[in-house]
Amino acid sequence: MQRTVAEIAREIGTEFEGDGSPIITGVAGLREAQPTDISFLANPKYKGHAAKTRAGALVVSKEIVVECSAVLLRVSNPLESFSRIALKFAPPSVELPAGVHPSAIVADNAILEGGVGVGPNVVIEPGARIGARTRIWAGSFVGRDVSIGQDCILYPNVSVREYCTIGDRTFIHNGTVIGSDGFGYDVDQQGERTKIPQIGIAEVGDDVEIGANCTVDRARFGKTRIGNGVKIDNLVMIAHNCVIEDHVVLVAQVGIAGSTIVRHHAILGGQVGVAGHLVVGEYSAIGAQGGVTKDVPPKMFYSGYPAAPHAQAAKMQADLKRLPRLKDRVKKLESELKQLQEEALNKRKDNDIG
Amino acid sequence: MQRTVAEIAREIGTEFEGDGSPIITGVAGLREAQPTDISFLANPKYKGHAAKTRAGALVVSKEIVVECSAVLLRVSNPLESFSRIALKFAPPSVELPAGVHPSAIVADNAILEGGVGVGPNVVIEPGARIGARTRIWAGSFVGRDVSIGQDCILYPNVSVREYCTIGDRTFIHNGTVIGSDGFGYDVDQQGERTKIPQIGIAEVGDDVEIGANCTVDRARFGKTRIGNGVKIDNLVMIAHNCVIEDHVVLVAQVGIAGSTIVRHHAILGGQVGVAGHLVVGEYSAIGAQGGVTKDVPPKMFYSGYPAAPHAQAAKMQADLKRLPRLKDRVKKLESELKQLQEEALNKRKDNDIG
Amino acid sequence: MQRTVAEIAREIGTEFEGDGSPIITGVAGLREAQPTDISFLANPKYKGHAAKTRAGALVVSKEIVVECSAVLLRVSNPLESFSRIALKFAPPSVELPAGVHPSAIVADNAILEGGVGVGPNVVIEPGARIGARTRIWAGSFVGRDVSIGQDCILYPNVSVREYCTIGDRTFIHNGTVIGSDGFGYDVDQQGERTKIPQIGIAEVGDDVEIGANCTVDRARFGKTRIGNGVKIDNLVMIAHNCVIEDHVVLVAQVGIAGSTIVRHHAILGGQVGVAGHLVVGEYSAIGAQGGVTKDVPPKMFYSGYPAAPHAQAAKMQADLKRLPRLKDRVKKLESELKQLQEEALNKRKDNDIG
Repeated sequence: MQRTVAEIAREIGTEFEGDGSPIITGVAGLREAQPTDISFLANPKYKGHAAKTRAGALVVSKEIVVECSAVLLRVSNPLESFSRIALKFAPPSVELPAGVHPSAIVADNAILEGGVGVGPNVVIEPGARIGARTRIWAGSFVGRDVSIGQDCILYPNVSVREYCTIGDRTFIHNGTVIGSDGFGYDVDQQGERTKIPQIGIAEVGDDVEIGANCTVDRARFGKTRIGNGVKIDNLVMIAHNCVIEDHVVLVAQVGIAGSTIVRHHAILGGQVGVAGHLVVGEYSAIGAQGGVTKDVPPKMFYSGYPAAPHAQAAKMQADLKRLPRLKDRVKKLESELKQLQEEALNKRKDNDIG
Repeated sequence: MQRTVAEIAREIGTEFEGDGSPIITGVAGLREAQPTDISFLANPKYKGHAAKTRAGALVVSKEIVVECSAVLLRVSNPLESFSRIALKFAPPSVELPAGVHPSAIVADNAILEGGVGVGPNVVIEPGARIGARTRIWAGSFVGRDVSIGQDCILYPNVSVREYCTIGDRTFIHNGTVIGSDGFGYDVDQQGERTKIPQIGIAEVGDDVEIGANCTVDRARFGKTRIGNGVKIDNLVMIAHNCVIEDHVVLVAQVGIAGSTIVRHHAILGGQVGVAGHLVVGEYSAIGAQGGVTKDVPPKMFYSGYPAAPHAQAAKMQADLKRLPRLKDRVKKLESELKQLQEEALNKRKDNDIG
Repeated sequence: MQRTVAEIAREIGTEFEGDGSPIITGVAGLREAQPTDISFLANPKYKGHAAKTRAGALVVSKEIVVECSAVLLRVSNPLESFSRIALKFAPPSVELPAGVHPSAIVADNAILEGGVGVGPNVVIEPGARIGARTRIWAGSFVGRDVSIGQDCILYPNVSVREYCTIGDRTFIHNGTVIGSDGFGYDVDQQGERTKIPQIGIAEVGDDVEIGANCTVDRARFGKTRIGNGVKIDNLVMIAHNCVIEDHVVLVAQVGIAGSTIVRHHAILGGQVGVAGHLVVGEYSAIGAQGGVTKDVPPKMFYSGYPAAPHAQAAKMQADLKRLPRLKDRVKKLESELKQLQEEALNKRKDNDIG
C-alpha cells in the first residue's frame, strides 16, 4: 500500500512543496508520526505540533504558514483530503457476511429479513424480528420479542433484553446492554429493600450509535427512550425512564439518573452526572465532570458541581484562586486600622493630659 | 390489552371523575404520556407536570387538588394502584425455562440442583454448584468450584470467576464480572510493576442485586465481601478486599478502592468515589459525585470533594458564591479607611501649622 | 489445609510469641479476620486495627511494638512472609488447558502457536495469529487479522476487534473491549452528525494488564497506543488516538479523551478525567477524581477540578474552609471603622462647637 509523496499528491489532485520521492507507508497524528507517515494540520492551534513533527509529509491548508521538515501538500480542506488518504492506507473494512452462522441459536419463530448476518454463538430468542441487512456479531443476545430495524450493527457480546426495540441504521458496540432492569426498590422501616418490577422497555431510535460497555436500563413502566441521531460514547449509564431526545451527544462515562429528560441537541461532556427527574434544555452543553442537580435551561453552557452557568463557575474558580490576595488586603486593613485607632487614642490621651 | 378508563377504575376498585369511555392502551410518566396512556401523581412535588400532562387518565390520591385534562381515578395509595395497572398492561415476564440448553457446556462434576435453568452457550466449569431454581442466561461463565445459591438469576454474559460464591435470591445483570483480579503490584526502583497474585475470592450474599457491567474484584487474599440485601446499580466498581455490609445501596458508576469498608445501610450516590482503606459509617449517605478521602462517621450525610458534612459543603459553596460581595465590602473598607487616614493626616498638618 | 500457629511459624522459619497450638484455617485483613485466621501488620499506620483484630495470629516486623490478642510471628519482611503463607492457604490457581475446545470457532487460516489454549465458544476470525502459550477463555472474540503475542491471558468475554495488536505477557480481564470505534462525527448546520470512519487500530504493548469491562477505542487513523508495562484497572475508558506510554498506571474508572498523551510512569487516580489533545507529563500523578483540562508538566502532583498543583488545590480548599473567619474579620473591621468614623465626626463637631 506504500506510495511516494508525489503519488499521494497526485491522488488528491494537488501539488507538493519539496521532494516528492519519500515513501509513505501510513498515516498518523502530528505527534506520533514517523518519517514514513503522512499527517495533517487543520487547526492552527496545533502549529506547534507541526513544527516538531517527524512526519514525512503533511497535508495543510492553502494559506497556513508553518515551518516544518515535512513535505507540504496544500489543499483547500486538509481534513477532507487527509481522510481520503487515510482511507487508502486503511485495511479493508471488515463486515459480517449475510447468513446465519451454524453455531447461532435462532428461535424458529424469529423473523430475519433479507440479507441479515448472524455471527457465531449469537442467541436470538422467540418472537424477535431483525430488519434487512442488519448484522449481529458473535456472542450477542437478542431477547424475546425484541425488534431491531434495518442496516443496524450489533458488535460482539451486545445484549438486548426482552421487548426492547432498536430503530434503523443504529450501531451498538461490544458489551453494551440494552434493557437491563431499572434500579428501583421499596424500602421498609428496617432499611430492607424489595425490588419494584421493571416492566417497561428501552426504545432506541434511528441513526443512533452507542459505544462499548454502556448500559441503558428498561423503564419501570412505559419506556426509556433514546431518540433519533443520538450519539453515545463508551461506558455511559442511562437509567430507567430517561428520555434522551434527538441528536443528543453523551460523551464517555456520562451517568443520567432515573426519569431525567435530555432535550434535543444537548451535549454532555465526559463523566458528567445528571440527577433524577430533571430536564436538560435543548442545545445546552454540560462541561466534562459537571454534576447537574437542577434543571438546565435551553442553550446554556453549565459546568462544575453543582453545575452552574460556566461563566459563573469560572468566576467562582477565579475568585477562589485570588482569595489569598483578599486575605492580604484584609490583613493590611486590620493593621492600618489599628494604627489609626492607636493614633486616635494617643490624641485623646494628649488632649486629656494637655 | 386495551381497556377503557371505566374498566380500569373497576379493576382497582375505585371511581373516576369525568368521562370513563376513553380507551387506554398503556402506562407512562406524566411528561411522556400520550392521550391513550394512564399515568399517576404520587408526589405533590410533580403537580406542575400533572397540570400539563397529555395522559388520558391519572391515578391520584384522594385528597390532592390538581387541575388537569386527564380523567382522575382517586385511590388511597396511587403508587400501589398504578403498579397494579402497569402490571396488567405489561407483557408477560420472560423466564428462562428449567433444564440445560444443549449448547451449554457443563462440566461433568458440576452440581445442578432441581429446577436449574441453563441457557444457550453457558459455560459451567468443574466443581461448580448451582442451587435449586437458579437461572443462568446465555453466554454466562461460571468458573471452577464457584458456588451459586438458590433462586438466583444471572443475566446474559455474566462471568463469575473461580472459587467465588453467590448467596440465595441474588440477581446479577448482563456483563457483570465477579472475581476479576484485584489491582495490585510491587513496584521496583525503575517504576516497573510486578503483579501481586490475587488469591482470594469475592463472596456475594443473599438477596443482592448487582446491575449491568459492574466489576467486583476478588481479594488479594481472603475475601472481597458483599453482604445481604445489598443493591448495586450499573457500572459500579468494587475493588479487592472491600467489605460492603448488609443493605448498602451503591448507585450507578460508584467506585470503591481497595480494602474499604462500607457499613450496613449506607447509601452512596451516583459516581461517588471512595479512597482505599477507609470506613463509611452505617446509615451514612454520600451525595452524588462525592469524593470520600477520610473515614465517614455513622449516620452522616457527606458531599463534595473532598467529601465533608453536607451542611458544611453547602455552606462553602454559598460562601464561594458570595465572595464577590465580600470583595466589595473590603474595597469599601479600603476607600473609607484611606479617607480617614487622609483626614487624620490633614488634622496633624493643621495642628503642626496651627 | 489447616495448620497450627506453630506449624506456620516453622514454615516461614521464625519464632512465635505465645501459644502455638491454635488452629489457623485461612488468611484475612486485620479488620475482617476471625480467630481462625492469620493476618499481618506491615504499615505502622494500621496499628490501631491490629490492637482490635480478632485474628488468631499476626505476622509483624521484628521491631514493631503492638498490643493485641493474637499470637505474634516476627519476621523481617511481614508482607513477603504473609504472602507466602497466603499462597499456601489459597486454592490451586486455575489455568485454561492448552488445546482448542471443540465448541470454539477458529478460522482455518488463523495461526495458533504451540501450547495455545482456546476455551469454549471462543471465536477466532480469519487471519488472526495467537502467540505460544497464550490462553483465551470462554466467549472471547478475536477479530480478523488480530495479532496476540505469547503468554497472554484473555479472560472470558473479552473482545479484540479487527487488525488490533496485543504484545507478549499481557492480561486482559473479563468483558474488556479493545478496538471499538472512536467517537467522531462531522456535524452539519442542523446539528445532525455523520460518522467519521474509524480506520486505525488499537495497539497494546508487552506486560500490560487491563482490568474488567474497560474500553480502548481504535484510532480514527493510525493507532491508539498502550505502551509496555502499563497497568489499567477496571472500567477505564481510553479514547481514539490516545498514547499511553510505558509503565503508566490508570486506576479504576479513569476516562481519557481523544488524542491525549499520557507520558511514561504517570499515575492517574480513580475516576480521573483528562480532556482531549493534552499531555500528562512523565512521572506525574493526578489525584482521584481530578479533572485535567490543561497539559500537566512532568513530575507534578495535580488534583481537583480543574486540576491544579495539589498544594495549590489543597490551599484553595483550606482557604475556602476559612472563608467564614475572613468574613468575621471584615465584619469586625467594618464595625471598628464605623466607630472611628463616628469619633472623628464627633471630634469635628466638638471642634466646630468649641
